[in-house]
Amino acid sequence: MPRFFTDSPAEDVIIVKGSDADHIRFSLRMKPGERITFCHGGMDHNCIIEKITEDEVICRVENISPTLSEPTVQLTVYQAYPKKDKLELIIQKTTELGVTRIVPFISSRCVARPDKASYEKKLPRLKKISEEAAKQSGRGIIPEITSLMTINEAIEDMKKNDLSLVCYENGGEKLSGISFSEKKNIGVMIGSEGGFERSETDRAINAGAVPIWLGERILRCETCPIAVTAIIMNLTGNM
Amino acid sequence: MPRFFTDSPAEDVIIVKGSDADHIRFSLRMKPGERITFCHGGMDHNCIIEKITEDEVICRVENISPTLSEPTVQLTVYQAYPKKDKLELIIQKTTELGVTRIVPFISSRCVARPDKASYEKKLPRLKKISEEAAKQSGRGIIPEITSLMTINEAIEDMKKNDLSLVCYENGGEKLSGISFSEKKNIGVMIGSEGGFERSETDRAINAGAVPIWLGERILRCETCPIAVTAIIMNLTGNM
Repeated sequence: MPRFFTDSPAEDVIIVKGSDADHIRFSLRMKPGERITFCHGGMDHNCIIEKITEDEVICRVENISPTLSEPTVQLTVYQAYPKKDKLELIIQKTTELGVTRIVPFISSRCVARPDKASYEKKLPRLKKISEEAAKQSGRGIIPEITSLMTINEAIEDMKKNDLSLVCYENGGEKLSGISFSEKKNIGVMIGSEGGFERSETDRAINAGAVPIWLGERILRCETCPIAVTAIIMNLTGNM
Repeated sequence: MPRFFTDSPAEDVIIVKGSDADHIRFSLRMKPGERITFCHGGMDHNCIIEKITEDEVICRVENISPTLSEPTVQLTVYQAYPKKDKLELIIQKTTELGVTRIVPFISSRCVARPDKASYEKKLPRLKKISEEAAKQSGRGIIPEITSLMTINEAIEDMKKNDLSLVCYENGGEKLSGISFSEKKNIGVMIGSEGGFERSETDRAINAGAVPIWLGERILRCETCPIAVTAIIMNLTGNM
């Protein structure tokens, strides 16, 4: 069944306008009587199309239920800004795998160092990638792509989590050794191409993050968040 | 320490010629007395450069030891041929994560369907990607990229494994429910964009493969092998 996200969920009637309405009318060529789902905040609004006008698609809500595909944990990936279009790959793949929030930040070894203004210009495109991947994979939310943070802001943000991890090439716990039980909000901090300075991981660890180690093979900075998200979803029973 | 793969390992002296010798001399600008590792079949040959001539780099082997980064399991990914350059991404990422062998095959829903000849033309490039990823991630072997198989050939090949899995969107065991103990040779079969025909998964299951299910989120065909490799490496204690 076609799935869309909506900003204006309702219990009775959902009215769709703009590009989603065009997509329903022209690309999907849907007709009154057909079924369609609108998702908001992890809740599926299962609808029947009631009427299609020139600029609106009017849908009657039949029932509302939690989106089955949403994981039971909220995972935030804190990603040191990588080069080229790697952040786009990270957003697409971790969205499919179940991430809730992606926080790009600048650390001292980042080679690509956009300022906040030029990052804000990129942000609509990054959000679009997240939305497309969320639609395609049947997610119940669109993962949030935050503003660009400094590493100190990211470490401060991590304090909100029940459990924070930092990938550390010089050693740490294996992911299998971490207890995820009762942990709902999980964060994991991952370096850019050059990894972290020792002082940076020390600061994260002092703020409560647990250093984790992914073994002897050196992963590229974009492979690490994808692998870690998959493994955490598996270890928490979400994959 | 710089790492290279060698086809001609030795216990005393390794002589390097061709592009690797050029790379050592001109890109890395290495000098006699510096340390370098040559890897063959999961064994590190740790060397000191003894002499550099116009076309050779002569290295004395100091000691030979198993490459620490090699996983304890041999994982073969059987991948239904995907569109565009997705196979390249799959090769690069699964190599970093520890795959031993990648078997591309044609199934009935493959959109991209190269014939064996045009695949053989692509193969040197695919092997190069595997070698580069193996070097970069510090692997002890270069994962093998096989010839293109039919799905029946791939299913036949899977019978060699101690444990074979097939990713099945309509349900199956969770990866966490699979017992990997004592399994050294593991295979996992993954569909292309359109997934598998029911008759294809039935044939794989009849040949002994266990259907596995990665949960409610629909993964793109290139995300699946990356996620599965990461999770299997984690579950077998290799990540």
